[in-house]
Amino acid sequence: MSSATAVRPAEEFDVDRIYRLIIDLATYERAADQVRSTPDQLRAALFGPQPAAYALVAESAGEVVGFALYFRSYSTWEGVHGIYLEDLYVAPEHRGSGLGKALLVALAELAVQRGYARLEWAVLDWNEPAIRFYRGLGAVPMEEWTVFRLAGPALGQVALGSASDGSATGR
Amino acid sequence: MSSATAVRPAEEFDVDRIYRLIIDLATYERAADQVRSTPDQLRAALFGPQPAAYALVAESAGEVVGFALYFRSYSTWEGVHGIYLEDLYVAPEHRGSGLGKALLVALAELAVQRGYARLEWAVLDWNEPAIRFYRGLGAVPMEEWTVFRLAGPALGQVALGSASDGSATGR
Repeated sequence: MSSATAVRPAEEFDVDRIYRLIIDLATYERAADQVRSTPDQLRAALFGPQPAAYALVAESAGEVVGFALYFRSYSTWEGVHGIYLEDLYVAPEHRGSGLGKALLVALAELAVQRGYARLEWAVLDWNEPAIRFYRGLGAVPMEEWTVFRLAGPALGQVALGSASDGSATGR
Repeated sequence: MSSATAVRPAEEFDVDRIYRLIIDLATYERAADQVRSTPDQLRAALFGPQPAAYALVAESAGEVVGFALYFRSYSTWEGVHGIYLEDLYVAPEHRGSGLGKALLVALAELAVQRGYARLEWAVLDWNEPAIRFYRGLGAVPMEEWTVFRLAGPALGQVALGSASDGSATGR
């Protein structure tokens, strides 16, 4: 890293800038219309009492130009926690300067220091530059697995299921 | 649900039984050799100070025959936490009695009560009975996404990357 770039834990004054980068990342992922969060929600998650989400920021010449937002996973096979990287983003004009890698390196360091077993994240299948980058670091795609999501009205509907006779539905 | 079955939060005295079910699930997933955890690690994760992993158990006639182990995720798009279900398992001889669904319903209730946006979990692509069950509940496969994992020696190697010149590596 050149001396003009640095990775550090996010501070509360970084929230508005991180939020802006979250919007930029969602736009890149063709999903900006799916962002329903507000800067205040992000502030509460990262800096409220007993936070369960965390962030690192990457700076270039004193400006925050990238971030990594993560939470703690847990593996019943490993018996220890891991890091799940929810978002990793570096502004396009700052790519190629090693900041994306520096963020991943900082997370890997954190995982190793804490005795965590894994660093994991989800990648869009069409994002080939990212996939090449991740494979180059030794990350392995979990190709046998698909994540299922229950959200919105379907989540509410299942939550109501406790009132009905679950035994008729089978597993 | 019949009165003989129940779902409740796990207690510390359930740990050995949950651990046994974790082994059974890994065996079903053809991965028993990958289980490196111990019951004591599980106890520490679920019942140590400030736990970041949680479990529900399903009982039949007073015996724990299933469990759901989860942790809190965070969505930068939703601005709120979610539940990530790491393991869901009901012993084969107790399937068809609605316990798997009862565990999912309890998690969905928990998510709705807390204002969480999502309940998510990973499914092995060959596990068709499970996939049918999940689709029937309204869960949607995140088919565009693949999870990448950095673990073992590769994780340690990336952690050491901070000492090298990251700027040469690009991105």
